[in-house]
Amino acid sequence: MTKQVALILSGCGVYDGSEIYETTLTMLRLDQLGIRYECFAPDIDQHHVLNHATGEEMDETRNVLTESARLARGKVRPLPELSAEDFDALILPGGFGAAKNLSNFAVKGADLTLVDGLREVVQPFHAAGKPIGVMCIAPVMVPKLLGEGISVTIGTDPEVSGAISAQGGLHKSCEVTDIVIDAANRVITTPAYMQAERISEAAEGIFKLVERLNGWIEEDQAKASQQD
Amino acid sequence: MTKQVALILSGCGVYDGSEIYETTLTMLRLDQLGIRYECFAPDIDQHHVLNHATGEEMDETRNVLTESARLARGKVRPLPELSAEDFDALILPGGFGAAKNLSNFAVKGADLTLVDGLREVVQPFHAAGKPIGVMCIAPVMVPKLLGEGISVTIGTDPEVSGAISAQGGLHKSCEVTDIVIDAANRVITTPAYMQAERISEAAEGIFKLVERLNGWIEEDQAKASQQD
Repeated sequence: MTKQVALILSGCGVYDGSEIYETTLTMLRLDQLGIRYECFAPDIDQHHVLNHATGEEMDETRNVLTESARLARGKVRPLPELSAEDFDALILPGGFGAAKNLSNFAVKGADLTLVDGLREVVQPFHAAGKPIGVMCIAPVMVPKLLGEGISVTIGTDPEVSGAISAQGGLHKSCEVTDIVIDAANRVITTPAYMQAERISEAAEGIFKLVERLNGWIEEDQAKASQQD
Repeated sequence: MTKQVALILSGCGVYDGSEIYETTLTMLRLDQLGIRYECFAPDIDQHHVLNHATGEEMDETRNVLTESARLARGKVRPLPELSAEDFDALILPGGFGAAKNLSNFAVKGADLTLVDGLREVVQPFHAAGKPIGVMCIAPVMVPKLLGEGISVTIGTDPEVSGAISAQGGLHKSCEVTDIVIDAANRVITTPAYMQAERISEAAEGIFKLVERLNGWIEEDQAKASQQD
């Protein structure tokens, strides 16, 4: 049976978009496990554009959907086209795009709001009990995105973990090579580049996240085929 | 003993820069094998900027070094700072940036010329017998970069392989999951996204390339320590 996962991207580059390695490593492990994936992103201007060599803001405008297409080798669809019915699970890689384009956490902290339409396409996954993987800084959106009382990790950063608690979320410290599983809510998180100093460390946590997600997808498909 | 590899990047995005997955997968395997890496790129304007969602040219200018920094999480140095003495081996990932920014193959075909300064920093690796890995479309530069009579692969594309032959190079067809080794010249090539339809296929060839490179580095280090 085909397994299908949706990815939500937020641009292309750690400081103003999706973290490139997190996204690529997610795709690698999905594909190695025979899981197809499709990418989605909001069709909006980026919060800003950062020169990744200097860290300085650049005087230009880039579109989140267009830049996400770089990371997806061209194949990315506008966020409103994402329908939970078409997928077995959802993954949100990290990068500051999650805190600048998918939400405004970078500006508002715990008072963050989500980009228009994000909650609407993510909630049906959660309501249907489909697994959701979230990485790096992106778990800071989980309380607003999925509801309070869900256990997540962003690693050990006290400011970001505090912002999760302040929103009614539960934060559990975690090493970069590991994952936090909220089995009741079917939410898996890993610190990735909130903690990683080496790409192989990030890969270890991300691969565990994708493998756990795959386990749940296979359980769901086995149950569905028994009911047929 | 520390192992060090230099990567030469050409932007960030398959159609006008470095292929993102090829570069990321190279870094992953290097890091898993305990090899440190540093990235270099020319400080020049890109040949052009393509909208990766539509394929259309965009009316803007981007700098190769600045965009490469996205793919390197900020850490990229100008090409002239690359000294073969500091590294055990060199890798050039692919992407159209190799044919548009590092060379003008996309415009000139077999009459291509190389970007200023590229040959000067690459030749010392070859002269010192240090291993060189080249991926995807980038092997089309090998005759001008390293000299004639070196066996490489870009997969099976007849036009690109013909352009390699026309320059005095040797082309050998190869599957995406495999590598072509010119042991005498210590050059390894793999088709990667010239052939890949799935990221796991590209990964298989790229991982083999990095592993073979690592084998040569360890041989060289063993010889060097015997001579001490």
